[in-house]
Amino acid sequence: MTEPLPAGAIIGILGGGQLGRMLSVAASRMGYRTHIFEPGGTPPAGDVAHAVTTAAYDDLDALRGFAEAVDVITFEFENIPTAALDLLDTLRPIRPNRRALAVSQDRLVEKAFLSDLGLGTAPYAAVDDAVDLAEAVAEIGLPAILKTRRFGYDGKGQARIMTEAEAAPALEAMAGAPSILEGFVDFTHEVSVIAARGADGRLACFDPGENVHRDGILRTTTVPATLTDAQRAEAVDIAARILDKLDYCGVMGVELFVTPEGLLVNEIAPRVHNSGHWTQNGCTVDQFEQHIRAVAGWPLGDGSRYADVQMENLIGSDIEKVADYATDACAALHLYGKTEVRAGRKLGHVNRVTRR
Amino acid sequence: MTEPLPAGAIIGILGGGQLGRMLSVAASRMGYRTHIFEPGGTPPAGDVAHAVTTAAYDDLDALRGFAEAVDVITFEFENIPTAALDLLDTLRPIRPNRRALAVSQDRLVEKAFLSDLGLGTAPYAAVDDAVDLAEAVAEIGLPAILKTRRFGYDGKGQARIMTEAEAAPALEAMAGAPSILEGFVDFTHEVSVIAARGADGRLACFDPGENVHRDGILRTTTVPATLTDAQRAEAVDIAARILDKLDYCGVMGVELFVTPEGLLVNEIAPRVHNSGHWTQNGCTVDQFEQHIRAVAGWPLGDGSRYADVQMENLIGSDIEKVADYATDACAALHLYGKTEVRAGRKLGHVNRVTRR
Repeated sequence: MTEPLPAGAIIGILGGGQLGRMLSVAASRMGYRTHIFEPGGTPPAGDVAHAVTTAAYDDLDALRGFAEAVDVITFEFENIPTAALDLLDTLRPIRPNRRALAVSQDRLVEKAFLSDLGLGTAPYAAVDDAVDLAEAVAEIGLPAILKTRRFGYDGKGQARIMTEAEAAPALEAMAGAPSILEGFVDFTHEVSVIAARGADGRLACFDPGENVHRDGILRTTTVPATLTDAQRAEAVDIAARILDKLDYCGVMGVELFVTPEGLLVNEIAPRVHNSGHWTQNGCTVDQFEQHIRAVAGWPLGDGSRYADVQMENLIGSDIEKVADYATDACAALHLYGKTEVRAGRKLGHVNRVTRR
Repeated sequence: MTEPLPAGAIIGILGGGQLGRMLSVAASRMGYRTHIFEPGGTPPAGDVAHAVTTAAYDDLDALRGFAEAVDVITFEFENIPTAALDLLDTLRPIRPNRRALAVSQDRLVEKAFLSDLGLGTAPYAAVDDAVDLAEAVAEIGLPAILKTRRFGYDGKGQARIMTEAEAAPALEAMAGAPSILEGFVDFTHEVSVIAARGADGRLACFDPGENVHRDGILRTTTVPATLTDAQRAEAVDIAARILDKLDYCGVMGVELFVTPEGLLVNEIAPRVHNSGHWTQNGCTVDQFEQHIRAVAGWPLGDGSRYADVQMENLIGSDIEKVADYATDACAALHLYGKTEVRAGRKLGHVNRVTRR
């Protein structure tokens, strides 16, 4: 293995949201600087970055300037256009590698990848038109959920189909985008494994967390999750197989459905993950530092869990709870500095340490 | 009490070293941005700041521009010229207030302030010339230590006087600066209390830490410190009296000598303090967040200690130990991103959690 990046090296981060913000903080703790590439103005990560490039992902000059200013490139979200990656790839190392992005950018490719690995998923079928949809419904049954293959997040680009009458409007909602029909899974709860793999190929998984969503958005993650020892081991094994297969470098979020028949992979996110925020107050080395360590060529750190934690997202008007949490002795606040409060907007999170 | 500063507000920080760097990180966690004022180039705090002003402390235009760009002003070191404070004071609130700076900037004023509070200190006397020094030596005895009244840190501006023959060269080393002779204190060890006082006047002290210096520079701080329960309570009480008397807002480091006759105050630092770095891995709310909370008008957070920690400064070639600490499961690394390794230069620290 090569030497880690030297002190003062610059880690380029595609995307300037709260994940980039917390990655920047972790980078500073490891002696690095960050350079954020983000199309939107006043990105939260820009507050704690050495430099910010404000440009669109199709601005090749800006991408080139960004790449040439940094030592390594990583990202905080997976929907980076292929043409941008094609250029960046020729200029600087991208960690994690593009294969992980290619797999996770397309729900159909992702499902096929997971199935090839022998991992269970929801039943699925590709849907490009009404004929496909009718066949898929016949095969998978209802209720089911139609999703665009690409560019969906936080419940966007999805439509539930409860009855056959809802099939046509659901397809219409996809606006012609290549889609995938997924069967409903009868799961008791969802857990996620935040897994890390270093540049040396070593793996380290954080303890699985139990996720609760509302309106398609993560509300809470709780550790420890409700899992048997065997399920816990299986969850970690699933994550390990995915990261190894992708020759992955960095942190990945692996969402799993817990069903009576076993664990099914819901989806993977090739980046630090909202369901891993609890690690900031439950582990010596959190998911953000673990990712920076991997990207910068350090050995992974110790991510053993030393506390029971409940992470709660502060979404929209939830931010009003901050006054109470500020005086809660169990609560660690993590605010993103966003000045505009909108329904559904993630403004911060709180990690409540429930047992130490 | 007024409302806390809103999300996105800008905290101005005078000084851009590692303390400013870690204050900036804590500010980001509370949803704030920072603006660093620092004469030197490439300040460590600049890596994680929203903005940096590079200018001298006598550049009044730069000071004015800085003040007008921020919502509140704080500082990471105490030797800020009075003229700069005179200007800044008219433009934005300075927290902690100037009285704390005035007291701590001058060893003689500090000693008098502490004595007036009824707190014990080393015996001391003002020394402006050879006559003063002879009188002071006669009164205090030898060995003693001659220090400039202002602008000393990490052992600089100090000369030990072991014998009368060393008195003249010691005075010469002060280069005509107003000085103070301090008698040696027969102490068993040094501890420090990192104390915080909110804008609402409430106090919160971290558990005292035990300090070990070498060559005048802090090497390690260990919690818990070797103290009886009574000494621990006395240490906290001393700190509380100092902060209350100064109507203080923010975090202060109070260094205490432990002697068979009781606790003596060595010195106070009106800022976050190297001996409080252990709080990053031993408390839910660390000294940096506690300071930001006070400065921004939040209630103080819970700084209870949940772990035994040894903080070790990485000074000069100590940085080579990082490779070992990176794989030490107990060790949390905090690197400052400084690219130039010099003897005596603080490049980072490691918090080793020895019991949880």
